[in-house]
Amino acid sequence: MKAICKRKDLTEAISIVERAVAIKSTMNILEGIYIEARADQIQFMSNNLELGIECTIPAQVAQEGAVVVKAGLFSNAVKKLPDFEETAQIEVNEKEMIHLSCGNANFDFSTAKADEFPHMPAVLEESSFTIKENTLKSMIRQTIYAVAQSGIKPQLTGVYFDIKDGVFCMVGCDGYRIAIRKEPIETTSQFHFILPGKTAKELLSIIGDSDDSIQILLSQKNAQINLKNCTMVTRLIEGEYLDYTSVCKHKNTLVITTETKKILDSIDRASLIVNETTKAHVVLKIEDDNVFINCETVMGIVKDKLSVDMSGEPIEIAFNPRYLMDAFKNCDCPEIKFSFSTPVNPTTIEPLEGDSFLYIVLPVRMR
Amino acid sequence: MKAICKRKDLTEAISIVERAVAIKSTMNILEGIYIEARADQIQFMSNNLELGIECTIPAQVAQEGAVVVKAGLFSNAVKKLPDFEETAQIEVNEKEMIHLSCGNANFDFSTAKADEFPHMPAVLEESSFTIKENTLKSMIRQTIYAVAQSGIKPQLTGVYFDIKDGVFCMVGCDGYRIAIRKEPIETTSQFHFILPGKTAKELLSIIGDSDDSIQILLSQKNAQINLKNCTMVTRLIEGEYLDYTSVCKHKNTLVITTETKKILDSIDRASLIVNETTKAHVVLKIEDDNVFINCETVMGIVKDKLSVDMSGEPIEIAFNPRYLMDAFKNCDCPEIKFSFSTPVNPTTIEPLEGDSFLYIVLPVRMR
Repeated sequence: MKAICKRKDLTEAISIVERAVAIKSTMNILEGIYIEARADQIQFMSNNLELGIECTIPAQVAQEGAVVVKAGLFSNAVKKLPDFEETAQIEVNEKEMIHLSCGNANFDFSTAKADEFPHMPAVLEESSFTIKENTLKSMIRQTIYAVAQSGIKPQLTGVYFDIKDGVFCMVGCDGYRIAIRKEPIETTSQFHFILPGKTAKELLSIIGDSDDSIQILLSQKNAQINLKNCTMVTRLIEGEYLDYTSVCKHKNTLVITTETKKILDSIDRASLIVNETTKAHVVLKIEDDNVFINCETVMGIVKDKLSVDMSGEPIEIAFNPRYLMDAFKNCDCPEIKFSFSTPVNPTTIEPLEGDSFLYIVLPVRMR
Repeated sequence: MKAICKRKDLTEAISIVERAVAIKSTMNILEGIYIEARADQIQFMSNNLELGIECTIPAQVAQEGAVVVKAGLFSNAVKKLPDFEETAQIEVNEKEMIHLSCGNANFDFSTAKADEFPHMPAVLEESSFTIKENTLKSMIRQTIYAVAQSGIKPQLTGVYFDIKDGVFCMVGCDGYRIAIRKEPIETTSQFHFILPGKTAKELLSIIGDSDDSIQILLSQKNAQINLKNCTMVTRLIEGEYLDYTSVCKHKNTLVITTETKKILDSIDRASLIVNETTKAHVVLKIEDDNVFINCETVMGIVKDKLSVDMSGEPIEIAFNPRYLMDAFKNCDCPEIKFSFSTPVNPTTIEPLEGDSFLYIVLPVRMR
């Protein structure tokens, strides 16, 4: 193998594919990056068996071939190439060492055999849709934090994609709260799937803020996401997602509106004395156009007061402060509407205008 | 105790004194911050028995008194006070709870008895000098990284202050390299002492970039550093510091000059394949106005070439790359002069002009 490419293209490709490199695998080869020079391009690939990423850049290929390099070392070397140089060269010699050179800088690393590297599964398209890069990014960002980190329901460790009737709903839920983000979408098809939370996180860090289209192809068990010059193939989580549309159907008896930053800061202060060991909650007493925030733990007492616009019956209700802060941080609006029915029923947080974002959170039963 | 002060003053004072709070001490009270309201000010104090910091801010004191609060909690509460409020109030009630309030935000924390808190030792001035804040900052920054982290010579874990003949030399040394920073100083006195490395680090993070004067008072065992509204008292390290003036007296047979960033980047690339387990070194072969950089470990091979201005005999010499990078990062000059005598004698790195900074580093014997 022998090929020349732009240093910037190489840096970008490696920084993308390194995200799907296996951290510690019983299959050593998965800790590497597959590199193949063919025709007029170089292909880079990583695959941790849950997620695979493939990225292709233009190159002048003098000799075709493929190898696997140790990911961490190669990636660091690429990042440290002289930033004033335009091009970089990759060459594999007869001793099967890869030689990376750029200006006066030269690196030699050992390689592994390319034919041992497991390729990404082919996704035989059963259905597909396209969405703007920046829209997908905001949808994932507004739902991913609500996904369960682990648990007996594997479905809840993923982000739910639900497309029907020209509406795309993305849902994150951990059993205590649900974040729902809606967007109109130009498709008459109907499909739904659960993207693993880890894949959603990597996708979030790779995709940009442009208006470019991203295409998502679906088969029974996998999804393929086509970005500009790279492709992700991910396993999907099997099983049925919960029926999020049936949650929170009861009538609200109280609605308050307030500045998002103010209520976030107040809850944040109260959360100071709540930690994993105290397992305490924050009590909101809402009356006379005020929210009285109260939190008492072994660590101390925090009290706060917030003026709000209020319509409905007074209430006293308790929450896990982290669940409230997550919603306020991710609602992406300067003012929010916070609706209540009883101290034990789910409450909803949503922007003052529009229905693009809805957050439903269970209160904590007060002792 | 009952006092009102500016919220910003309070935040600043706490962020300074929290630096000398003991992390885990057998004396529980040292994990707290001492607060005393007296006359028209509030005094905050921390003391980990090696370093003590005291900070005073103006206040309206309605009732005098003193308490000790748990540092972490109180500090976090102060930082989370509403940022649009001007003033904050501190009050200790009859149950010995401290009440911190600011606008609508209120915190109550338990306290410990103030009379159990060990005050900082008084420094009976035997000698003193003053120096500009920004000068002291740059001197510490340019020497602190060379200080030994631990070792059989406790003297080397500190930064050496050496003042004589109107010159202030600050020295950091770990036995393998020495960083020396010189400044003219307006004093005819002569004194020297070893400031603990930890104290130097905290001082570095507290002092600013102004032209304001800092006064340093010395006694046999302690130093007192007077900043604008705060005072640090630190233990000094006892014993004799090494005679740094006698190091590197041999004649140079080769001097090269080069751009600092270029040589730093080259060594940085080579260091990629050097880690704690490989214990490898970087070999510099200097000839024909070129530095050929070579590093070989089990992880791979790195080669680089750098054009330099060279006067003297060619040399082949090896280094711990970290020691070189530290010098290049901290010499504060765009071009450096790097001087050699033999492959086993100390080498020197200094700015192209002036003698304010000198770095002496031992090469590694090549196998």
